[in-house]
Amino acid sequence: MPFNSLDELRIACLDLPAGDAAAAAAVAARQNNLTKPQGSLGRLETLTGWLGRWQGRAMPRLDRVKVIVFAGSHGVTAQGVSAFPAEVTAQMVANFAHGGAAINQLAKSAGAELEIVALEVERPTGDFTQTVAMDGADFLAAVSTGYDAVDKDLDLLCLGEMGIGNTTTAAAIAHALFGGEPGDWVGRGTGVDDAGLNRKADAIARAMALHKAALGDPLAIAAALGGRELAAMFGAALAARRLGVPVLLDGFVSTAAVAPLFALNASGLDHAVAGHCSAEAAHRRLLGELKLVPLLDLGMRLGEGSGACLAVNVLRGALACHAGMATFAEAAVSEK
Amino acid sequence: MPFNSLDELRIACLDLPAGDAAAAAAVAARQNNLTKPQGSLGRLETLTGWLGRWQGRAMPRLDRVKVIVFAGSHGVTAQGVSAFPAEVTAQMVANFAHGGAAINQLAKSAGAELEIVALEVERPTGDFTQTVAMDGADFLAAVSTGYDAVDKDLDLLCLGEMGIGNTTTAAAIAHALFGGEPGDWVGRGTGVDDAGLNRKADAIARAMALHKAALGDPLAIAAALGGRELAAMFGAALAARRLGVPVLLDGFVSTAAVAPLFALNASGLDHAVAGHCSAEAAHRRLLGELKLVPLLDLGMRLGEGSGACLAVNVLRGALACHAGMATFAEAAVSEK
Repeated sequence: MPFNSLDELRIACLDLPAGDAAAAAAVAARQNNLTKPQGSLGRLETLTGWLGRWQGRAMPRLDRVKVIVFAGSHGVTAQGVSAFPAEVTAQMVANFAHGGAAINQLAKSAGAELEIVALEVERPTGDFTQTVAMDGADFLAAVSTGYDAVDKDLDLLCLGEMGIGNTTTAAAIAHALFGGEPGDWVGRGTGVDDAGLNRKADAIARAMALHKAALGDPLAIAAALGGRELAAMFGAALAARRLGVPVLLDGFVSTAAVAPLFALNASGLDHAVAGHCSAEAAHRRLLGELKLVPLLDLGMRLGEGSGACLAVNVLRGALACHAGMATFAEAAVSEK
Repeated sequence: MPFNSLDELRIACLDLPAGDAAAAAAVAARQNNLTKPQGSLGRLETLTGWLGRWQGRAMPRLDRVKVIVFAGSHGVTAQGVSAFPAEVTAQMVANFAHGGAAINQLAKSAGAELEIVALEVERPTGDFTQTVAMDGADFLAAVSTGYDAVDKDLDLLCLGEMGIGNTTTAAAIAHALFGGEPGDWVGRGTGVDDAGLNRKADAIARAMALHKAALGDPLAIAAALGGRELAAMFGAALAARRLGVPVLLDGFVSTAAVAPLFALNASGLDHAVAGHCSAEAAHRRLLGELKLVPLLDLGMRLGEGSGACLAVNVLRGALACHAGMATFAEAAVSEK
């Protein structure tokens, strides 16, 4: 297990590599000689530099792209916070295995490998309105599972999830980290009605009172209010940073899962880009707190890594331009 | 030639097919049974319905996607409206032919065929501050070239362009159609300085005075203030509508080129989606006038069809979900 104590994990979060500035500079220098007005490829240029920095390559590549969907079950579903029954988590894990979910199609369309990591789906976390979601050992085990799921040979990692009830979990973490009111952070998730929305906000308010002692520490928040799949995404994002693998985040849950890394270390998510802004309204607010500007904004609210995966082909387009375009000199095109 | 008079062209613009509502309904019905909360794929679902409607298929496809880059030269460059010399248009046409431009890479990345249609690049249009850009015959010839470039076997058409000076042309058309001040519609294009920006606005103001008699008629506007590549994009969009080919628009110039079709017929662009919102600020304003919501917003301002092409893979993702996902019944997943 990579982390045997919360202190070991905390130290790893504080001591992070800064990326390869020389590679990023080499990308920018090449971009400025390609046959286009400087800067006219907009975010494609900065994304190429970002991939270069975190891969440590002047010519970044996307040969091995992986989507990992982490799945977990949530005790807080007992509070009536989801439109779907809790057993859907396990049913969807089976659907992933049989290739029938959205993420199966989107991963293929993005040229990405898909891996499903189910975290004790048959054993829900504690209901955080009554107790901690995970004790320290349970949390560290989930973080370690996520950490160990990342392979240093990856060129890009997309972080997806499945877990009935986990927009409530994500909202609790976001509220605990960034304040405001519980109602600022809850949304309709898979489709709860107004009464369900009120139950979500109420569950979070009660959890804040119960776990007051944890609220000063992002890791304690992630354990007390989180979920195993969120803890695993946190671990995977940390591993990616340490192994030189850029990360695409998905929706509200994926982003909330890694938010404690930002709370511990203001540069902790520099290797991550938000693939898509969810229709779950709190996602936009959370991205703002994390200073992340999403690549896509297509009204999706599915999770599974679907938004991250859709953004992969934007990155492929960016790298195709970087690698394939002629310079002004090569093409004998006049400059300004 | 498909149109021998402006009247023939006008009639064709007014008499447009409405698309296949049954195909669109079949798409929506299938989407509601797939293993996801209803509506949770957001715009991917409505885009699939849009492709279904205009292709006339309950299972739309993107087997043949084509990007056409229309190129033309602009007399108004004599007014000092561009950061790059006018000869760059022909140089970039050569760069396209040799595979060195951004659009070559992005078309490949989108699985799209690329065709370059150069419209008398050696013969600039008239300088519209002095005379009409095109007389009626010249305009009809360019529209017809665009019309004839569209093949009914296409599943999707992306409309791109190249023409030094053509953001000034686009701004003139947009201003003539939608009012405001010339300064509302001009931007830095490939990178003019403040003085160049003033020259753009001034050229447009003078053109409005000179061509006052044309301003009531969208086709007369497109001839007097337009460019051959813009007229060709207009013709191509019209052909696509009549042949059942959905269209992805690119940036400010591509959108301004087809705006007269909207001005003639409020449903004239229902078969078109905006691929990307340009960093050329007037594009957002123009999209608003046309009631188009762009798919991507990545700060690009290159033209060539680059933004449209990047959006193709979003559509591919949408169709992959539509075709490949399991229904709730097939996957034995519980519903709400």
